[in-house]
Amino acid sequence: MARQYEAWQGFESGTWVEEINVRSFIRHNYTPYDGDEAFLETPTQDTLDLWEQVMELTAKEREAGGVLDMDTKIISTITSHGPGYLDKTKERIVGFQTDKPFKRALQPYGGIRMAEKACADNGYKVDEEVSEFFTVHRKTHNAGVFDAYTPEMRACRSSHIITGLPDAYGRGRIIGDYRRVALYGVDRLIEDKEEQKRTTRSAMYSDVIRDREELSEQIRALHQLKAMAQSYGYDISLPAKDTKEAIQWLYFAYLGAVKEQNGAAMSLGRTSTFLDIYAERDLKNGVYTEKELQEMVDHFIMKLRLVKFARTPEYNALFSGDPQWVTESIGGVAIDGRHLVTKMSFRYLHTLTNLGAAPEPNLTVLWSTRLPENFKRYCAKMSIETSSLQYENDDLMRFTHGDDYAIACCVSSMRIGKEMQFFGARANLTKCLLYAINGGVDEISGKQVGPEFRPITSEYLDYDEVMRKYDAMMQWLAGVYVNTLNIIHYMHDKYCYEKLQMALHDKHVTRWFATGIAGLSVVADSLSAIKYAKVRVIRDENGLAVDYEVEGDFPKFGNDDDRVDEIARDVVHIFMEHVRKNHTYRNGIPTTSILTITSNVVYGKATGSTPDGRKRGEAFAPGANPMHRRDSHGAVASLASVAKLPFIDAQDGISNTFSIIPGALGKDDRIFVGDIEVDCVNGACSTPTLFEGLDSE
Amino acid sequence: MARQYEAWQGFESGTWVEEINVRSFIRHNYTPYDGDEAFLETPTQDTLDLWEQVMELTAKEREAGGVLDMDTKIISTITSHGPGYLDKTKERIVGFQTDKPFKRALQPYGGIRMAEKACADNGYKVDEEVSEFFTVHRKTHNAGVFDAYTPEMRACRSSHIITGLPDAYGRGRIIGDYRRVALYGVDRLIEDKEEQKRTTRSAMYSDVIRDREELSEQIRALHQLKAMAQSYGYDISLPAKDTKEAIQWLYFAYLGAVKEQNGAAMSLGRTSTFLDIYAERDLKNGVYTEKELQEMVDHFIMKLRLVKFARTPEYNALFSGDPQWVTESIGGVAIDGRHLVTKMSFRYLHTLTNLGAAPEPNLTVLWSTRLPENFKRYCAKMSIETSSLQYENDDLMRFTHGDDYAIACCVSSMRIGKEMQFFGARANLTKCLLYAINGGVDEISGKQVGPEFRPITSEYLDYDEVMRKYDAMMQWLAGVYVNTLNIIHYMHDKYCYEKLQMALHDKHVTRWFATGIAGLSVVADSLSAIKYAKVRVIRDENGLAVDYEVEGDFPKFGNDDDRVDEIARDVVHIFMEHVRKNHTYRNGIPTTSILTITSNVVYGKATGSTPDGRKRGEAFAPGANPMHRRDSHGAVASLASVAKLPFIDAQDGISNTFSIIPGALGKDDRIFVGDIEVDCVNGACSTPTLFEGLDSE
Repeated sequence: MARQYEAWQGFESGTWVEEINVRSFIRHNYTPYDGDEAFLETPTQDTLDLWEQVMELTAKEREAGGVLDMDTKIISTITSHGPGYLDKTKERIVGFQTDKPFKRALQPYGGIRMAEKACADNGYKVDEEVSEFFTVHRKTHNAGVFDAYTPEMRACRSSHIITGLPDAYGRGRIIGDYRRVALYGVDRLIEDKEEQKRTTRSAMYSDVIRDREELSEQIRALHQLKAMAQSYGYDISLPAKDTKEAIQWLYFAYLGAVKEQNGAAMSLGRTSTFLDIYAERDLKNGVYTEKELQEMVDHFIMKLRLVKFARTPEYNALFSGDPQWVTESIGGVAIDGRHLVTKMSFRYLHTLTNLGAAPEPNLTVLWSTRLPENFKRYCAKMSIETSSLQYENDDLMRFTHGDDYAIACCVSSMRIGKEMQFFGARANLTKCLLYAINGGVDEISGKQVGPEFRPITSEYLDYDEVMRKYDAMMQWLAGVYVNTLNIIHYMHDKYCYEKLQMALHDKHVTRWFATGIAGLSVVADSLSAIKYAKVRVIRDENGLAVDYEVEGDFPKFGNDDDRVDEIARDVVHIFMEHVRKNHTYRNGIPTTSILTITSNVVYGKATGSTPDGRKRGEAFAPGANPMHRRDSHGAVASLASVAKLPFIDAQDGISNTFSIIPGALGKDDRIFVGDIEVDCVNGACSTPTLFEGLDSE
Repeated sequence: MARQYEAWQGFESGTWVEEINVRSFIRHNYTPYDGDEAFLETPTQDTLDLWEQVMELTAKEREAGGVLDMDTKIISTITSHGPGYLDKTKERIVGFQTDKPFKRALQPYGGIRMAEKACADNGYKVDEEVSEFFTVHRKTHNAGVFDAYTPEMRACRSSHIITGLPDAYGRGRIIGDYRRVALYGVDRLIEDKEEQKRTTRSAMYSDVIRDREELSEQIRALHQLKAMAQSYGYDISLPAKDTKEAIQWLYFAYLGAVKEQNGAAMSLGRTSTFLDIYAERDLKNGVYTEKELQEMVDHFIMKLRLVKFARTPEYNALFSGDPQWVTESIGGVAIDGRHLVTKMSFRYLHTLTNLGAAPEPNLTVLWSTRLPENFKRYCAKMSIETSSLQYENDDLMRFTHGDDYAIACCVSSMRIGKEMQFFGARANLTKCLLYAINGGVDEISGKQVGPEFRPITSEYLDYDEVMRKYDAMMQWLAGVYVNTLNIIHYMHDKYCYEKLQMALHDKHVTRWFATGIAGLSVVADSLSAIKYAKVRVIRDENGLAVDYEVEGDFPKFGNDDDRVDEIARDVVHIFMEHVRKNHTYRNGIPTTSILTITSNVVYGKATGSTPDGRKRGEAFAPGANPMHRRDSHGAVASLASVAKLPFIDAQDGISNTFSIIPGALGKDDRIFVGDIEVDCVNGACSTPTLFEGLDSE
């Protein structure tokens, strides 16, 4: 039904007036900006003061060993805490996860033991009654998962052939369309959800009952969101009236999500061009000056930098840091051919100047050859100065996801408010190859983990035999893997449902069922060695193949050599086909990623020697990378090999990390010290500051 | 796999040794008893002392207004409380729901508001943290149900066309096979459940995941049961070695169930003949005397009499008392033709002499013409003396349920450990007829509750038109009703799963999906009046049919007149066919009951005038009874009408309540004061003491 709100005065009408449709609002109202960064403003005194306060608290937090304060009794919900401030008189945009900055919330829905450990490892102790309650009466995601796991799944988990499963923490990878709260106000969104509830299927099959309960939870979450905003003195039931309100409403929505969920990636979406529409109107009407607008943006980004979760050292080790992946996607090109860069895109990046470089929020430029030249240059400049930008290939992703998608975590693209991902960590395809050779026996532990298939007993490996057995073992692995994920996502929905994030989605949501692959280039090179050289098997006293001797040379992945590149491509395709053979929870659409960026080291440690000559415990190459030093034909050949991998089989992302000497790229205004390590994801690249935070297990 | 335990010495082998199969154990080992009650023993001094203590506490409880003590903080689980005693030195059989007798447990899983109200109405207050926890973090069955209900379901509930739904309290009607604990010990049962978990389907569809999680919950419950018994000083991991242990093990299992669940009916099963096997062995081996055996039984039954729940006055009003329906089924005949009466059957009934009459446990004789004469006589004697027995027709039920079924609540028969029931309360078919006439508008409130079908507008009702519209309206009602129950049972499993009771069931459980019918005889008479007399409609100023004038006479249900009896039969059949058209949760098999026994008064109050001349607010006849005073052709004709109702369409039970002057039944040794009101269920009868506790909404 069409609505009119005073807050919409001056906006051009469109489908967005009739239905919840932010994309339509943007399309009808945004102002592409082709100019340069000259208009940008320096920080205000209030901004500088607040940031200094943040820096002081950060120093104190570091001194305290990484955590300044933790909740041990109050369980975090959207409305669990009263308002929190740095300095109320100076903050243009307000809101913290708890009642004060740097105090980490207690979030046990994902798993009470994880929450207890996060506290214990930082010198805190969860209140005993809370612990008991979440052990005896209120089951968690983690407890549910382990109730349903099979012994085989546990064995796969212990032997590290499947790793990093989100079975003890929040899965993340869901982006609420936080813009909706600003554009429509919460009341209109509640109305829409009520309408969705009125129109579910009417025969009460279990999935319909689940949908109806979830919609009720979503509506409840929206009411709570209003209450939370109210505690800060804001009534967000109606649409935001100006830029400040739009940022504040949007931030409250995001804040509600991080109060409720401690997901492995709590990304923001694609908000800059949306907000620019308000800014343009306010500039035109003289409501705010550029200085004021930048100040709001600075304060907003400052808040995003202060999103913190209570996590265990193990979690941080796995993820190489304490990442939140507050990923914001900037730029890109619209389906109608116009680029989506606005002044607000500049303002977001400009926070890196006003506040200094930072890994969060994960500012990600959706790169297209058709971005305006001035913006490209500005991005390059900011990358050089701050090393804090990530780039991804919009020209590639626009094809599958249109022009209102965003990146969740580091590379997972999804249409905002229309798609979400069931995060799936990854399977170790290298170990799977060794299982094929050893008939399902783990080469490290000697335990029978996979099925008791007939092992290879010949002295030299035969390519056809290995491929046949590898195919069968991949089919088994894909089965266990997908079924494990089915359990995880069933239980996450049951015990740790993302009610606010899903409240900011459409009724009919497309669910990507993500899986992941590790060790691809080791597999490709191993199979190439078996095919083109001679590989002799070395067995231990139990007949277990524990090492390999390669006689002769063989083509190696990363040299643009089709003989091996096709093997890599085929392995990805075969594995995905096996994945697709399985039932997926809630009709999730299977995808995969080739994406390890730091954990390749961990995977390598857990994997025995391989037929390519790699020794037990040696690191894998990251993501889809060729093995280190084997790509001997130059960067272009190396990239060409990776580029042959089928994106259609790995739509959740293919990553390639490589180092180049900046000078090699041509002339430059600036002088660099050392190399820059660049991480390429989905065909675009990020700069090294983010490198540490990019893995997504 | 076959097992041997020392505890089984002297027992004859059978399938029960290979698998969990109590029926096989009974069949191979029990000793039918044809003798009379002469062997029975009087109570011991300890028994008398304990019972006196109970009587004192009962008096105190009555003085205190109905409740002596309540938990307001400790949430009841199998292991939540330490041991409780009346007098440890005198009790042969031990165990209370909380840490002392007469203290009612706090059980909020079904609904926190119900638990709060139960406390508040008795002058207690649930601990605030508990209330908050069960409101914010730990959802209850009740909260889940209301999240999924449609406005139509709520309207049907408010207008009382569907009533008594178990959506705010435990559904009950599940009988754990408590005997298994005695026969096999808990360890063997855990092993069996582990095996069941190992052999679920392997593709992780949501129903498989649910099964696996439930099995894990069941295993956990069995471990808790062991821990609870341990707190009383008993190790129940192995089979019971003698009668005392067998009773104690069995009672612990039942006690675990009532600690965990506050179901609308927590029935015991069919335990007497099972226990008699132990008693016979002990008598033979001189382990226990008859005096000692009776003492154990007396103490066991005493414990069952002391099962208490925290309930609201409304609940008690609905159920006419504070019933537990600790129904124990006694006697019956085996498939092989032998009767199942043992000395233990006598001992159970003898508790009514030793301890005095009582409505709980609900001692129910499975009556057959082939029961031994001495037992029949003894039952008659006990009925006359104590008015505390219920009788049901074993000859009828054995046909569908075999010889190891029991009664849950008052009439719901189910194979023990193999079947359970999803309790379904009932639909008001009389009101449905009025909706058919008024096009879905409620005749009391004037609200459109049903679908906006075309109402009848003629002055006189036409039978064919009414039947056509009634058929359509019943189809609608059956749909809403079954879908409402689908939601209830989905949520009960999700938030209030009966893990211990289900742990004492087989892997593959048959689930009866119970529905119920109210007001049948009013419907039959109304349709008969429309068909055989002339019924003029009286409408209010809005055109709503609010009253009826019958011109002429018509056949009335209860006089063995096929003209109307066939209408009653057809209505039951048509309604059940409509019920069967709907999807039922977990493939439940639809059944119905015609069973209101006291609530017919409440239903009548909520229903407008009917075409049979019954005035607005007048009570319905109970269950399948003819309307009061309309069965003018004598008791046999009245019973004949009821007997024509198709049991195949109403397998959950057909009840008929009628009063007779004892003298009318022939000569008798005793003199009665006044009439005895007899309640006939499934073709057998109970005596009046139980009358008040027999309705099952």
